[in-house]
Amino acid sequence: MNNVYIALLHYPVYNKKGDVVTTAVTNMDIHDISRAAKTYGVKRFYIITPLEQQRQFVRRILHHWQEGYGACYNPWRKKALDITSLKSTLEDAVREIKEESEANVNLVATSASPRGESSRFEELREKISENKEAYLLVFGTGWGIADEVIDKSDYFIEPIRGPSNYNHLSVRSAVSIVLDRLFGER
Amino acid sequence: MNNVYIALLHYPVYNKKGDVVTTAVTNMDIHDISRAAKTYGVKRFYIITPLEQQRQFVRRILHHWQEGYGACYNPWRKKALDITSLKSTLEDAVREIKEESEANVNLVATSASPRGESSRFEELREKISENKEAYLLVFGTGWGIADEVIDKSDYFIEPIRGPSNYNHLSVRSAVSIVLDRLFGER
Repeated sequence: MNNVYIALLHYPVYNKKGDVVTTAVTNMDIHDISRAAKTYGVKRFYIITPLEQQRQFVRRILHHWQEGYGACYNPWRKKALDITSLKSTLEDAVREIKEESEANVNLVATSASPRGESSRFEELREKISENKEAYLLVFGTGWGIADEVIDKSDYFIEPIRGPSNYNHLSVRSAVSIVLDRLFGER
Repeated sequence: MNNVYIALLHYPVYNKKGDVVTTAVTNMDIHDISRAAKTYGVKRFYIITPLEQQRQFVRRILHHWQEGYGACYNPWRKKALDITSLKSTLEDAVREIKEESEANVNLVATSASPRGESSRFEELREKISENKEAYLLVFGTGWGIADEVIDKSDYFIEPIRGPSNYNHLSVRSAVSIVLDRLFGER
């Protein structure tokens, strides 16, 4: 499984009121999602934010764990953060994947809210394992990925559901569950 | 599904060196795990720590979201934290569940490392849905639940595995994935 990438989007996403905004990067997101990505064999985890101040913050964390004191203090954490990378825009990530994989890049959007047409997990699991093309799963922060990104995606995965009608998982939980449904071994 | 409880153990757990210690409670654990528990229909989420200073910290957070300003600011978060409760010991949680459910309480241990005998997710999923007894899933912080707790458990769930041999998920990710494997709807 060398064709799967994930991205955590900080722009364009919605805020509580439905405006398109740039959210702040959260330290815990970087760690938890890197570890989940590494566990499920994801090739690279992209943190997407256009804000220079936020980008400095992310670079500091990545440097600490990839090359600084953290790399020696906790080599397991280094292994996870070694697949993590910073980009200004989702388009930059797609461009890099296309160059690297020399394959078509399928954009897969995720959301907590249902939309008209969505792919079932089982269906995508099969498609990704059989196909040699690249897949980039996109996760939104804040109140979710802006429609302009969802509209241009190749796939939209069905929302995660439990037995209740409560669907307010953290993005850290959502990424973990989606990766497990698509790539977990049972 | 009104018979499932979860506990996040801060004592007795291992540290990096294998000593039995009490870990500090993390704010993000309370939020992420409450939200996942609520999503998957868990009846109550117990935070277990015997340290009074830590207990004050947890009480402050729970009060803010259950009754204070947070309850009004984010009612969805209130719904999640309403099922969250603080106990000094795992035994206290078991006692409360036994009284409340008037049923036998099955202790289910989890770990990132395999042990001799373990239950498969599919098997437990079936057993829990068919059975009227109570189930308490226990998750460890730090480097995992101490053997003394695992030894007296009724079940030990197989470790979560992805396609890689890297198994260093955060406890927030692990709880989310275990709940989805046991109670998720696909």
